[in-house]
Amino acid sequence: MPAQLILFPVPIGNDDPDVTIPSYNRELLNTCTTFIVEDERTARRNLKRMGYTALPLDQVELLELNEHTSPLDIVGYLDPITLHGRNVGLMSEAGLPCVADPGSLVTAEAQRRGIQVLPLVGPSSIMLALMASGFNGQNFAFNGYAPIKMRDRDALLKRLEVAIHRDNQTQIFIEAPYRNDQFLEYLAHQLQPITRICVATDLTLPTQYIRARLARQWLNDPPQLNKRPTIFLLYK
Amino acid sequence: MPAQLILFPVPIGNDDPDVTIPSYNRELLNTCTTFIVEDERTARRNLKRMGYTALPLDQVELLELNEHTSPLDIVGYLDPITLHGRNVGLMSEAGLPCVADPGSLVTAEAQRRGIQVLPLVGPSSIMLALMASGFNGQNFAFNGYAPIKMRDRDALLKRLEVAIHRDNQTQIFIEAPYRNDQFLEYLAHQLQPITRICVATDLTLPTQYIRARLARQWLNDPPQLNKRPTIFLLYK
Repeated sequence: MPAQLILFPVPIGNDDPDVTIPSYNRELLNTCTTFIVEDERTARRNLKRMGYTALPLDQVELLELNEHTSPLDIVGYLDPITLHGRNVGLMSEAGLPCVADPGSLVTAEAQRRGIQVLPLVGPSSIMLALMASGFNGQNFAFNGYAPIKMRDRDALLKRLEVAIHRDNQTQIFIEAPYRNDQFLEYLAHQLQPITRICVATDLTLPTQYIRARLARQWLNDPPQLNKRPTIFLLYK
Repeated sequence: MPAQLILFPVPIGNDDPDVTIPSYNRELLNTCTTFIVEDERTARRNLKRMGYTALPLDQVELLELNEHTSPLDIVGYLDPITLHGRNVGLMSEAGLPCVADPGSLVTAEAQRRGIQVLPLVGPSSIMLALMASGFNGQNFAFNGYAPIKMRDRDALLKRLEVAIHRDNQTQIFIEAPYRNDQFLEYLAHQLQPITRICVATDLTLPTQYIRARLARQWLNDPPQLNKRPTIFLLYK
């Protein structure tokens, strides 16, 4: 099998990787000695808890990919594959890589150069929340973070509410964790009373909370989301 | 822990569940003696290969959920949870339940009644394809099947191509497998030359093929998709 770029998911907060990571991933983890990571320190911790044993952790080559990385560096990150025929791993900080992190810059480069990319199964808070919401899974949009400016936010919400009711499209958001409670209150007030909101918090953790209610109902007994990782889903 | 509705993913075509299913899922599988399934026969086969041992397979209660199921039946499907305090499992035919199957009718009912829903990790061909495409994962839409009528299809594609170039939104489709090759040719002709198409076929299988190219490039050496399960992604 030719060398490839392997995309490794990381548990989302849970300490036991067997809850969210298939055992096969560990086999492939141990075929890599170079990893592209967002942060060296958490990457070493994640390698350890996912059972990496191919090399002592201080000898693993870690290539950082974050807002300080230049595009030129990224091109070189794939050299182990093209020059030396060795697999390179790419890890997220939590969850699936290349979804809400800069990982797609590397996979895009790999695609341009015809390098084989192997995505592995792991926890996607977006999909877990969608499955449990009861909302439409045959048509949905993940919109990332809601815009910060109120005017942009209001305009986007109006547009997406049309897509919910006219196109049957579920709308999915995340918010900076410290604004979770504010955001839920905003949604509960702003949306039409017939629109539903599903709040999915602490997914895969023992404290997991997933509930769908009509917009206005969230004004009674709102949950305390605080800074817990939360996905917001909107549908009818 | 109160009884709950547990959502069990099923491998997508692969015979060895350890490749795509965390070992934790098997523990929970064995807490259920009732399962909501699309088809009894494939459900028994899937239970067997995923290591179900709690009961002989002919004694497991299987409740079918498909186009023949009436909404009234669905309400009764949750009785083991509410009346008897026993977990109920919900399984897809392949991949994540409640995404491209009728499972969300049951989770929606569970949400209405305040029954706890536990979604488990497993293979999502949508997310695997998105991760490997190099396309934007921070904003994407899954559009399900492309419309069959040419006029509707053309109109939708035009609208989504605007969303790609203006809103940086990746667009994801599936097609009836026997129309895969036709659909790729259609996309390659119809899209702007600067729009990219990623084709992701046979995900998680040894024959996996994932490649992103500019629209027109797909007219040279198109892959033979035949009836292999395929995800189409569009971006710039």
